[in-house]
Amino acid sequence: MLPVNKNRVEELIGGLAKFGKTEAGITRLAYTSTDKAAQMWLLKQIEYLNLEVREDVLGNLFLRRPGLDPNIPPVACGSHLDTVIHGGAYDGMCGVVGALEALHMLTDETLRRSIEVIVFRAEESSRFGFATIGSKLITGKAKPEKFANACRKDDITFKEAVKEWGGNLDAYEKALLKPGAYKCFAEMHIEQGKVLEETGNQIGIVHNIAAPTRFKLHITGMADHSGATPMGFRKDALVSASKLVLAVETAAINEKDNGTVGTVGIVEVDPGSINVVPGKVTLWVDVRGVNTESIQRTLKEIRQAVQGTARTDGVEIKEEMLTSDTPVALDEKLATQSEAICTEQKKSFLHMNSGAGHDAMHMPAICPTTMLFIPCKGGISHNPEEFAKTKDICAGIEVLAEILKREAQ
Amino acid sequence: MLPVNKNRVEELIGGLAKFGKTEAGITRLAYTSTDKAAQMWLLKQIEYLNLEVREDVLGNLFLRRPGLDPNIPPVACGSHLDTVIHGGAYDGMCGVVGALEALHMLTDETLRRSIEVIVFRAEESSRFGFATIGSKLITGKAKPEKFANACRKDDITFKEAVKEWGGNLDAYEKALLKPGAYKCFAEMHIEQGKVLEETGNQIGIVHNIAAPTRFKLHITGMADHSGATPMGFRKDALVSASKLVLAVETAAINEKDNGTVGTVGIVEVDPGSINVVPGKVTLWVDVRGVNTESIQRTLKEIRQAVQGTARTDGVEIKEEMLTSDTPVALDEKLATQSEAICTEQKKSFLHMNSGAGHDAMHMPAICPTTMLFIPCKGGISHNPEEFAKTKDICAGIEVLAEILKREAQ
Repeated sequence: MLPVNKNRVEELIGGLAKFGKTEAGITRLAYTSTDKAAQMWLLKQIEYLNLEVREDVLGNLFLRRPGLDPNIPPVACGSHLDTVIHGGAYDGMCGVVGALEALHMLTDETLRRSIEVIVFRAEESSRFGFATIGSKLITGKAKPEKFANACRKDDITFKEAVKEWGGNLDAYEKALLKPGAYKCFAEMHIEQGKVLEETGNQIGIVHNIAAPTRFKLHITGMADHSGATPMGFRKDALVSASKLVLAVETAAINEKDNGTVGTVGIVEVDPGSINVVPGKVTLWVDVRGVNTESIQRTLKEIRQAVQGTARTDGVEIKEEMLTSDTPVALDEKLATQSEAICTEQKKSFLHMNSGAGHDAMHMPAICPTTMLFIPCKGGISHNPEEFAKTKDICAGIEVLAEILKREAQ
Repeated sequence: MLPVNKNRVEELIGGLAKFGKTEAGITRLAYTSTDKAAQMWLLKQIEYLNLEVREDVLGNLFLRRPGLDPNIPPVACGSHLDTVIHGGAYDGMCGVVGALEALHMLTDETLRRSIEVIVFRAEESSRFGFATIGSKLITGKAKPEKFANACRKDDITFKEAVKEWGGNLDAYEKALLKPGAYKCFAEMHIEQGKVLEETGNQIGIVHNIAAPTRFKLHITGMADHSGATPMGFRKDALVSASKLVLAVETAAINEKDNGTVGTVGIVEVDPGSINVVPGKVTLWVDVRGVNTESIQRTLKEIRQAVQGTARTDGVEIKEEMLTSDTPVALDEKLATQSEAICTEQKKSFLHMNSGAGHDAMHMPAICPTTMLFIPCKGGISHNPEEFAKTKDICAGIEVLAEILKREAQ
């Protein structure tokens, strides 16, 4: 196997980081022209790998290194190129660049199976309010109707975005992958937490992926003049919403020991004028964990607060469920293999769970799946401060390349 | 004096309501093409009045009915045509249409003084975050530097908007009105509260106008991945902001008996993604009252909550003052005259204060000023449900016309 090339890894990650870069961080939302430009640039850079390029009707990209036997399921790896609003340069990109560099390391290896690097589209939920859309659709974990009309204020819908990209959501069945389509799938990713850094480990071997439950709370009060409406005569939707933001926080803190977390990431205030008592507020809530019972207790506590606030404040509150996933267990055999590889390569490792969702959480529907975490500075991600050391990325690539080699033999 | 024409009043108010009308209400922000179109339409409708039309460099409109003696200060009246986002058809418009109809009623009267109807630009703060900009500038109550760069997200600045309108903010001194420029000023307006309706009175004679204190609170926490950041490791700016929304509410409720009110009308969340713990939040706060000491106590309590929250949550909170006005006393002689007119016309009336700000609050800087309130349904304003009965509007116009006649004689 060829050695990992640190310079190339840095160049590819640094080059991708220029697409969507602003002072406030990198904003490269899925299916935008910035997303497209980044992908085009990357394809240009890796022409030397001579990969077969295929894009499905949803915009997911497949880069294939042909194996000796084209008739048996390939080994797959990969991640995503889109970012959140004001995000960083490593979340997703390490997994894509790492997979491509792993293929380069395997240049001189003769392997029976093909290897495919998958660039999943729309992993982040920042544009459409749903995460891992590309991987969810191609694994049959969701139907396109679920996302077709999803959009943020003043933006086009998911269906329109797929069309603008050059795809066709109506033809999504062409993109469906059958169980057994791949021998296995491996995704390398920054941890997005600080456990590896604080424990001084190089590799995290992931066993479970936390499930996000996401819903909107629509609070309807009464819009009134902010100067002429006495305090006792108001139904201020933002006051009720603020109680619910704090209720989400409290409910999650009560389940802290089980690793469950709860966040309100988006607040939409209508009409949103300084001289109008807010009449309507929408909160976007995200609850996650690896323990199903703990997640349920958290949701129950939030719903009790919703009912209590509606009653006390005389406002109407409606829940709109967006996503309700169950925690996912990854392949134990592949995890054991990763442990053996780490030991052989003398790399420190930790068995752990993923608090964040990943494209890898849907792949068990079609093939055995594993994930490798690498440390990131301060556990920070989805933020311009997001950072992973090149030597940590390269350590992960060395483990990934060995996984691909063993599985493709 | 000619009788008030109910049909024309309804036609003019109904016609203006078409400009900016959507299902969610009327949105006719100041200086927009919609604002311009509404004004052009209105000018066309009132050609029969043969008024002299003048616009100052800020876009304020002056419609003059010449008097016998052009060398003495005219009598002025008027209001505004802009609305909040998702507003109604009466706030501002009743005062403009009412003044024009009052001029019609005076058609056959021979009056010594000219009468001017003023359409002030940018009374609502919805577009630039500052209220009563036009009247504040021409009365010398504020310098243009204060507003020049004001803008909402994704919009042009105030200075650019003035230019787009056809004005020139740099030449604002040309628009300045000297003390004594008018004999007096009268503004008719919907109450925007429910006191007249609930007490069954036709006319509110206003003695004081509440002063708005407006400021932003910038809360800076730490943006992090919402799935991978345990509850104990967060600095969620939205959680801290929610505590402050409730603190504003509590502080104002504590001063309820003094009529002080407090509102958070705008919340800006950065980055505003469902999978990112909010790193920065900006709250726009509005506190008002007619009792200066009560306003000060409310602000003090809010600031104590700001300090406490910053300390407890480990976040940084900065206050940015936007407006800090003092309550305004209107002219008592004019109020006494209004009482006499109401009594003569057999109209029920109430002496009261205004919780909302109005262009009339700046006019005492140049001339004696009075305000008339008329009832509006449920006290609702700044809302599509905003409504005033034609007979109530016409009752107000009858009083206004008599004020103009007596003052212009």
